[in-house]
Amino acid sequence: MAYQLHYWPTIQGRGEFVRLALEAAGAPYVDVARGAEDAGQGVPAMLHQWQDRKATHPPFAPPFLKDGDFVVGQTAAILLYLAPELKLVARSEQARVWTHQIQLTIADMVDEAHDTHHPVGVGLYYEEQKPEALRRAKEFCSVRMPKFLQWFESIVVRNPAGSRHLVGGKLSYADLSLFQLIEGLRYAFPMAAEKALAKAPAILQLHGRIAALPKVAAYLRSERRIPFNEQGIFRRYPELDLA
Amino acid sequence: MAYQLHYWPTIQGRGEFVRLALEAAGAPYVDVARGAEDAGQGVPAMLHQWQDRKATHPPFAPPFLKDGDFVVGQTAAILLYLAPELKLVARSEQARVWTHQIQLTIADMVDEAHDTHHPVGVGLYYEEQKPEALRRAKEFCSVRMPKFLQWFESIVVRNPAGSRHLVGGKLSYADLSLFQLIEGLRYAFPMAAEKALAKAPAILQLHGRIAALPKVAAYLRSERRIPFNEQGIFRRYPELDLA
Repeated sequence: MAYQLHYWPTIQGRGEFVRLALEAAGAPYVDVARGAEDAGQGVPAMLHQWQDRKATHPPFAPPFLKDGDFVVGQTAAILLYLAPELKLVARSEQARVWTHQIQLTIADMVDEAHDTHHPVGVGLYYEEQKPEALRRAKEFCSVRMPKFLQWFESIVVRNPAGSRHLVGGKLSYADLSLFQLIEGLRYAFPMAAEKALAKAPAILQLHGRIAALPKVAAYLRSERRIPFNEQGIFRRYPELDLA
Repeated sequence: MAYQLHYWPTIQGRGEFVRLALEAAGAPYVDVARGAEDAGQGVPAMLHQWQDRKATHPPFAPPFLKDGDFVVGQTAAILLYLAPELKLVARSEQARVWTHQIQLTIADMVDEAHDTHHPVGVGLYYEEQKPEALRRAKEFCSVRMPKFLQWFESIVVRNPAGSRHLVGGKLSYADLSLFQLIEGLRYAFPMAAEKALAKAPAILQLHGRIAALPKVAAYLRSERRIPFNEQGIFRRYPELDLA
């Protein structure tokens, strides 16, 4: 049975990390909220599942995944659950935990990238917090982005199995998520990201290899890949690209 | 061999979620950075381990745990790793993932609580971002805190095994982390937390049961429990307690 992915239909957002894993593995899935309402899909179907008052595992927020009767939310937990089935993580417990540790560090950087345009709160528009966003983006571009990227660079360079992957000698969901993180940074902060990535050649090469994987390349060319836009996590506000 | 916990020695911070799991399980551990430098411990020992340029699994930041040769960072990943050994998670994969999903949602709320006093950036002092903190705290106290707490309330009430625990019929690390989250909210936002918790009786009872567990109670009375203070995640700035 196909997995059901539930996520907001007009943005890549956090759902994209799950979508990339499903696509790279060639796993069958339905992107529920992007389906037609008269086929029982669309946003109402997502809301119905999300708000089900009888559910014992209600997600706090999208994205969430439905696999038969099992529902799981939180991007990193979804990937933790899916990865063994999709063969996107090594079998050893230590490798599984290390992969997850990398994913959580990617998630932290994603949160910080998001907070550049929403420092004061998620309930306000960007336009209501522009001066604060400028201050926050300044620190993100000059301090946090280089620091995070250097950490990813260091771990891929130190991988005992070689720098083609983050963990061991095979593709993992952390590689896919790092690809997406770099995509997002380049979209939102083209100048600052170029500057920081110039000092991180190994992850830049990793990014290129992921983009060239046949299933990933086909996905990126397809209509299933939603373009970046100014409603998602990574937004191009040129005034915040403080290289 | 005793576990080594590496974390800043003067705050509860994120390390406290790991400490509570170790304490509740009665597991032997060394709180490295709080030890004596002439015994090879203290902050220099933590920094030495953290900055080891040959490490293949370097943590991005404390807390991190050393178990023999294996090093793991990221609070939630540390708990994911420790829980089976400490018997703080059920054996089924679905229960393990659900427990982790709850932990990640706790971590999200912890991040948001932290950002009330640091909305503009971690590199600045609170005193440099007080107006922004006020705006962010207003949303946190009136919208986000009640929303998160109602989610925890709903899942404990819906637990098919009864509302004594978050997952199944046994203590898990998610119960311990929810206890700590409520402790922190009550410290930092006494009025706003009281108001929100008045509508969440089941998690309040869970909190009380955790505090009364013999090993937890003994730990909380001990000197090993660092008091809350204004350097950690949960800080009592009365102007931000916007009930």
